Amino acid sequence: MKRHVKAPILLTLGLLLAGVISGPPLFAAEATDAASVNAYAIDNMFLFLCAVLVLFMQAGFALVESGLNSAKNTVNILFKNMMDLGLGVILFYIIGYGLMYPGDAFSGGWFGFSGFGIGVESPEAVGGNLHPAVDFLFQVAFAATAATIVSGAVAGRMKFEAYLIYSAVITAFVYPISGFWKWGGGWLNELGFYDFAGSLVVHALGGFAALAAAIVLGPRIGRFNADGSPNAMPGHNLALSTLGVFILLIGWFGFNPGSQLAIAGAANTDIVMIIATNTLLAAAAGSVLAMIFAWILFKKPDLTMAMNGLLGGLVGITANCDSVTYNEALIIGAVAGILVVLGVKLLDMLKIDDPVGAWPVHGLNGVWGGLATGIFGGHPMVAQIIGSIAIPVWGFVTMLVLFLILKMMGILRVSREDEMKGLDISEHEEEAYHGFQIFSTQ
Amino acid sequence: MKRHVKAPILLTLGLLLAGVISGPPLFAAEATDAASVNAYAIDNMFLFLCAVLVLFMQAGFALVESGLNSAKNTVNILFKNMMDLGLGVILFYIIGYGLMYPGDAFSGGWFGFSGFGIGVESPEAVGGNLHPAVDFLFQVAFAATAATIVSGAVAGRMKFEAYLIYSAVITAFVYPISGFWKWGGGWLNELGFYDFAGSLVVHALGGFAALAAAIVLGPRIGRFNADGSPNAMPGHNLALSTLGVFILLIGWFGFNPGSQLAIAGAANTDIVMIIATNTLLAAAAGSVLAMIFAWILFKKPDLTMAMNGLLGGLVGITANCDSVTYNEALIIGAVAGILVVLGVKLLDMLKIDDPVGAWPVHGLNGVWGGLATGIFGGHPMVAQIIGSIAIPVWGFVTMLVLFLILKMMGILRVSREDEMKGLDISEHEEEAYHGFQIFSTQ
Amino acid sequence: MKRHVKAPILLTLGLLLAGVISGPPLFAAEATDAASVNAYAIDNMFLFLCAVLVLFMQAGFALVESGLNSAKNTVNILFKNMMDLGLGVILFYIIGYGLMYPGDAFSGGWFGFSGFGIGVESPEAVGGNLHPAVDFLFQVAFAATAATIVSGAVAGRMKFEAYLIYSAVITAFVYPISGFWKWGGGWLNELGFYDFAGSLVVHALGGFAALAAAIVLGPRIGRFNADGSPNAMPGHNLALSTLGVFILLIGWFGFNPGSQLAIAGAANTDIVMIIATNTLLAAAAGSVLAMIFAWILFKKPDLTMAMNGLLGGLVGITANCDSVTYNEALIIGAVAGILVVLGVKLLDMLKIDDPVGAWPVHGLNGVWGGLATGIFGGHPMVAQIIGSIAIPVWGFVTMLVLFLILKMMGILRVSREDEMKGLDISEHEEEAYHGFQIFSTQ
Repeated sequence: MKRHVKAPILLTLGLLLAGVISGPPLFAAEATDAASVNAYAIDNMFLFLCAVLVLFMQAGFALVESGLNSAKNTVNILFKNMMDLGLGVILFYIIGYGLMYPGDAFSGGWFGFSGFGIGVESPEAVGGNLHPAVDFLFQVAFAATAATIVSGAVAGRMKFEAYLIYSAVITAFVYPISGFWKWGGGWLNELGFYDFAGSLVVHALGGFAALAAAIVLGPRIGRFNADGSPNAMPGHNLALSTLGVFILLIGWFGFNPGSQLAIAGAANTDIVMIIATNTLLAAAAGSVLAMIFAWILFKKPDLTMAMNGLLGGLVGITANCDSVTYNEALIIGAVAGILVVLGVKLLDMLKIDDPVGAWPVHGLNGVWGGLATGIFGGHPMVAQIIGSIAIPVWGFVTMLVLFLILKMMGILRVSREDEMKGLDISEHEEEAYHGFQIFSTQ
Repeated sequence: MKRHVKAPILLTLGLLLAGVISGPPLFAAEATDAASVNAYAIDNMFLFLCAVLVLFMQAGFALVESGLNSAKNTVNILFKNMMDLGLGVILFYIIGYGLMYPGDAFSGGWFGFSGFGIGVESPEAVGGNLHPAVDFLFQVAFAATAATIVSGAVAGRMKFEAYLIYSAVITAFVYPISGFWKWGGGWLNELGFYDFAGSLVVHALGGFAALAAAIVLGPRIGRFNADGSPNAMPGHNLALSTLGVFILLIGWFGFNPGSQLAIAGAANTDIVMIIATNTLLAAAAGSVLAMIFAWILFKKPDLTMAMNGLLGGLVGITANCDSVTYNEALIIGAVAGILVVLGVKLLDMLKIDDPVGAWPVHGLNGVWGGLATGIFGGHPMVAQIIGSIAIPVWGFVTMLVLFLILKMMGILRVSREDEMKGLDISEHEEEAYHGFQIFSTQ
Repeated sequence: MKRHVKAPILLTLGLLLAGVISGPPLFAAEATDAASVNAYAIDNMFLFLCAVLVLFMQAGFALVESGLNSAKNTVNILFKNMMDLGLGVILFYIIGYGLMYPGDAFSGGWFGFSGFGIGVESPEAVGGNLHPAVDFLFQVAFAATAATIVSGAVAGRMKFEAYLIYSAVITAFVYPISGFWKWGGGWLNELGFYDFAGSLVVHALGGFAALAAAIVLGPRIGRFNADGSPNAMPGHNLALSTLGVFILLIGWFGFNPGSQLAIAGAANTDIVMIIATNTLLAAAAGSVLAMIFAWILFKKPDLTMAMNGLLGGLVGITANCDSVTYNEALIIGAVAGILVVLGVKLLDMLKIDDPVGAWPVHGLNGVWGGLATGIFGGHPMVAQIIGSIAIPVWGFVTMLVLFLILKMMGILRVSREDEMKGLDISEHEEEAYHGFQIFSTQ
């Protein structure tokens, strides 16, 4: 062991000797500088690791969504998720990042652009403690998350090409523009709207885009009866879905704590630890309350509801995890768990087919997170209400227009025959489970 | 790049100027302070990331256990694991944490309570370098681990409600009380008993609780013949189980290294690295020796045994990973791998049905870890023996009583018909693999 | 919160008081020393966490490979992967590590050995900032990666014993020797050959070993028709494979950034962040270009190709991720994505059966990564060409000899009957999916 401590000791002795010559002030300055250099390493390592956790969420979404749908659409859903990342990274690199962080000149505005690629003028980097590369890495992981929320809601009936167009548009334009409104320093930020890690900026945007997609697409064949009553279309692999939920939980410890963008400095360290614990408490409360509430309503403990309750709790705490107490985090998660169940019932009543509950989890609870930030977090309520309307409306309307255009062009939905056959065969000529017997009536 | 280095340099220059005015001592003090602030960030970030790794173990347990059981009980097992986390976090927050770390007033005792929620008097926090939130986060992940060990052993026959009661009791009371004996400063700690990361405090407690549950519940229908000979009831998805083992291995790098509770300071840094390497060496030796030993006994290389051997090696090294050499870590893991195979055979002989081998892996090897801490780790053997008896007995007896009460109340085991149908349908009306053909004779 | 800041403040005050007595120079020296101690913690924590991410890649390989093969060989593939880690860790600890890092005395040479176990003379440790234990942890994870690349290529027909022999030989001897040539300071390093994180040292070595294995073994029964035309033998579980790809992506953020072996110091911090972003950009470009190119060739978007394209992009950027711009990373990934598709076609034409595309992904793109390091990274082209020939030839020839010897001994390939039955039953008497109906014609 000693050998390893030797280097610092020698360094110290060397500096000590140097200090005798050059005098103490330079000496001390070097020491202070060394601490700043360490703080720089700490902050960048922290955000790098958080970005990796957020990127892992892509796996979580892919599993949750494919597991909650039928086996015949598995390849299609997995592929969409992989391309949300692949296309998303490239397009956010080229266009989205410059739109979302256009620089101070556009402060308070609706729209700006700082140029293609990873610009040197990213606001977090200037005057901050982060290398632009890790700032990009963290932000692009968020962009891919916003995009991928939709893939579950459109499962089983949207053409692959149409999805790629959607994914490109949301990552390159729609997410970065409303993201700029808040995190880039735009009008919502000026207004005092608060959204710490993106209950609205990320989740409600994706959740309301998913709602627009589900409405324009219409339900899967057989999802609703002629009298309007719904038929359950159970997922084909709840083991994968549960694993996906756990991966999303893990990834959220990058999503929320990382959004502090710094951990060095006692105040940063403290708040990151509080954020992490609030995140876990809300997730726990969401899963338990959704289980209890669904148990009361449906007379049985339902795993899918508990899973979505856990995720809903995470979405609800995302905007305010740095602003509320532990007990408030439990309350926010508990309400989120109940809202998820109510949201699923509401969509059934409205005959909107959202196969994975993307809107109840991300849309409805994104709004809840925004409002809870005012109720519990002490942020001005009016600004919270405005932001909690503006971003969902932006996501819903822009995506409604896009999906309507794709529908008019006839490239939105697969044929009835292809839907019955399953998108894996009809779109990709590729089975997810070759060799397994699968019920033909599925 | 330069732009990012600018900030520290400017800071340094500013401090240098300030130093000219205020004199060098304050100057140097500030620099020392900056290093302490960085060390605080480093230690908290380290424990935060370790806590995330330990939380990921919940996914590992869920996969190992569900994969090693039949498909018809998959939803039930996944759900139990999810609720170990959901309920566990809430109850450990409210009650367990205060029981486990009641403060110095209860030092050397059997029982104490510091209050509800995350108390400000947690021993690690006072005088230490950790924020109470991250201390809680790390400890609650351990509590959930202890609880979830049991879910595999009771698979296929315990009622969901009974499991929720068990899970609440162990997380809120049983685990925190014996945890206090050692880690909270109680009587076992005073005695000189050593258990670095919880071979006994966590794993043997869970493993012997699992044994009590398996005994009270009795075996699954068809597990043993009239003449007492066992029938193998193979798992339905070894791909999931293997993934689960890998996830547990990864999570263990949070479990063991994180238990140092600090990484800043050369002595902490060094020991954390040694702990991590010992952890990997023991896991490797456990998997290889279990494979070889089972190959000799059963004339074929058995994946399930190798998996459990890997996990057994991890359990065995957990108490002593900071106290043994690399070669000793290999020996501890190797013995653990052999013990797993012997433990499985022993349960078969005793006609105890532990579907996943929870007792051989966590119970038997938890005790082995405690004893190995005396044999190889240089800790007083008498104290190790006392601790290696006290905690298993506590876990076994309290849980035996609880499960007997639940049995007398008639809410422990599902009906014969429900067991044959599978718990997914009978308890949750939810299939894990909707659309897949599954043999009816399973 | 205040309580937690108290400790550093008290420490500062104490040091301040001490400074009044002992004078400022010692004072400042202590502060400098504190910064060095922190840097030591930062660097070791960084490499520890990167090692954990690389170890997680074992799970990724296990899933990709088993998912891309038929259900009847799943246990066998999973088991091989687990033993690559189990055996690999033990043998790299005993022999491989000493061969790969034999110390300065062997500088520029072809072969050296510093002794068994974790020697104190590991080059990174001496004079560096890393504890030998974490250096070993990181290096052994790389060794296991090189070994496990082969398991997919030999799926469905190699005997388990033969695989264990192969795995032992590559981890103990073949990988460490060529690894020494570059990373241990051997002749390739002296020559000026550059391979930052192992496009050649790790991936091409494994990829060309896989090619040798596939050639000696011959194709699976039914893989090629009498007229030489190939039959697709689709994987049985693309959900697992896709998850595996995401896990590998995540693991690569340990593989590439960790290869800087340091993050403290502004220059290290900066380059680690750039490495991480280049890694993601290349992966994204690889997945998108492979999708597009396969779409053009096969008239359908093929998930398997996109997956392999993503992995190919990662392999291609591995040698040069610290030496190229963001735009060049996109180009390297894009070319890698196209090469993967061409490589798969080439193997089909040559009637070589590589069930998972191990050679196109790791072999071909390993070489591409080595050459791209010369083309874009500014490293001398001649040295890059020599290294990009030497390591693949070493891997191919040594493994060809080994597999030919195993073939002559009659222990390489299972019988025709066992192959038809599947290796899970014939080698392990263990089904991966007990209870699921699987087509007998598979």
